[in-house]
Amino acid sequence: MIITVTLNPAIDVTYRLPRLTVGEVHRVAEVTSRLGGKGVNVARVLHQLAEPTHAVGLADEAFAEALASELPSTFLPELEEVRRTVVVAAAESTTSLWEPGRQAAPGADLRLLDLLEDWVVDATALTVSGSLAPGVPVDLPARIARLAAAAGVPVLLDLDDAALAAAVGTGAVLTPNEDEAARLLGDAPDDPVVAVKELATRHGGPIVLTRGRLGSIACADGACWEVSPPAGIAGNPTGAGDATAAGIVRGLAHGRPWPEILRDAAALGAAAVAAPVAGEIDTETYASVLAGVRVERIDHEEP
Amino acid sequence: MIITVTLNPAIDVTYRLPRLTVGEVHRVAEVTSRLGGKGVNVARVLHQLAEPTHAVGLADEAFAEALASELPSTFLPELEEVRRTVVVAAAESTTSLWEPGRQAAPGADLRLLDLLEDWVVDATALTVSGSLAPGVPVDLPARIARLAAAAGVPVLLDLDDAALAAAVGTGAVLTPNEDEAARLLGDAPDDPVVAVKELATRHGGPIVLTRGRLGSIACADGACWEVSPPAGIAGNPTGAGDATAAGIVRGLAHGRPWPEILRDAAALGAAAVAAPVAGEIDTETYASVLAGVRVERIDHEEP
Repeated sequence: MIITVTLNPAIDVTYRLPRLTVGEVHRVAEVTSRLGGKGVNVARVLHQLAEPTHAVGLADEAFAEALASELPSTFLPELEEVRRTVVVAAAESTTSLWEPGRQAAPGADLRLLDLLEDWVVDATALTVSGSLAPGVPVDLPARIARLAAAAGVPVLLDLDDAALAAAVGTGAVLTPNEDEAARLLGDAPDDPVVAVKELATRHGGPIVLTRGRLGSIACADGACWEVSPPAGIAGNPTGAGDATAAGIVRGLAHGRPWPEILRDAAALGAAAVAAPVAGEIDTETYASVLAGVRVERIDHEEP
Repeated sequence: MIITVTLNPAIDVTYRLPRLTVGEVHRVAEVTSRLGGKGVNVARVLHQLAEPTHAVGLADEAFAEALASELPSTFLPELEEVRRTVVVAAAESTTSLWEPGRQAAPGADLRLLDLLEDWVVDATALTVSGSLAPGVPVDLPARIARLAAAAGVPVLLDLDDAALAAAVGTGAVLTPNEDEAARLLGDAPDDPVVAVKELATRHGGPIVLTRGRLGSIACADGACWEVSPPAGIAGNPTGAGDATAAGIVRGLAHGRPWPEILRDAAALGAAAVAAPVAGEIDTETYASVLAGVRVERIDHEEP
């Protein structure tokens, strides 16, 4: 069973209306909402792939109850409330309003670690994805990673800012994008391959640098690969990173070799772009693009 | 005790941000939310005036529980969910997004009538304010008014559209605005006094035509009055109508004469404009403007 951890979930609300005009009153014709957050999306994709999964995290009671009716999950009711992300989808524009995360109760981190201590025993892999609710210590993902590593469970951390910085050295798979990698390195080399190698060395573990449409560059176990995704997939890029993370963590859970993991993850990312909502993949796209993903070993000499 | 009925409550959410730009992602710095709906606002004003009040209506469980911790209230958990009204308050614009009301459970009207049948025995007056959730029969406010009238309880109905039309003939106090009155009359006379008289005759009960900054024109018990509010009150007009309704229903509960009721209601409306949020009045403004409200008897001859 793969555990996905979400420390700042969200209710993703979409308002559909013909036109958004600043300064006016709009009667919204159609409201849809979906329980989300990056770790929840990872769990949804794994669930769709029939991979045994359990989503874990911090939320409020209503969210915890509602999600449990959709997906195997255990969310501790430690947040005042779960934030909403409102997307106003008009015919010719998409405008987003992201509420700030709400405060976590004191000691929420310790109660979550207690829970995970019991759960990791049965886990085949674990992810921690997304931002942290206010009040959650920035090193909680790193502590979770160490807990899992001590139990022999492979870990992927999809984090940013201070939580990502705190995770360097844990040995978990880190998946920064180019901005995050540059901030981590301070003075980033121009060549992304050199940057990824340097990060992997500092970190002492795998780095998968995610580059959106350009694919990814990964260094793990002393080797590096450049991954080129299939061209021509149009759609909704929200959630593509979570599907990619689902692909990597599934590969880790099954002990697959890195080139195979990276190919599968890139195909899942493309299949998420082709699906209308985050946390879903288009299975036909997945099947059709898998063979077309290019994964090239790059034997880059240090300059 | 005054009962206020709300058949389509709302959670009023305010997002504060420097600027709203169509097509962009905004991280909202500040979120405030408040349990609302017109009848809830009436109850809040009465509560602030230390008038014994009980708010009743249809909602979901979370809303019912949360409101009960703020205000004496009983909301039946008959709605799928309580809608939100989102106000995006930027420095130079206010943009609103009103979610549609959610479906009421079949039979919710009958269960509410059962509840009110028990409650009206102890009531001194009753209001029904605002729109109806989908699934609520348009004549429910009229049926509530008849139930209360049968128990000798005076009623104010602040409604629009089909629910207002269905309430004509109940004898309750109706408070249409000019657009609503024109729609009711079909072919409305140019002179608003003639229109109000005609409506009062058709209805067989008091009409208070609300005209925003112009005040109101009321016909009741065979007499008519023009009410001119105090000038120079600036602020937030949202909720002013609910404070006016609170003033009228309080007067009805205490059996006060109409000129006094109308003066008090206009002062409360002005005091609501001076308060920052709907459902509150500025008590200093209320005290200072009360004597300045002009209530003139209009002995208008029929043409």
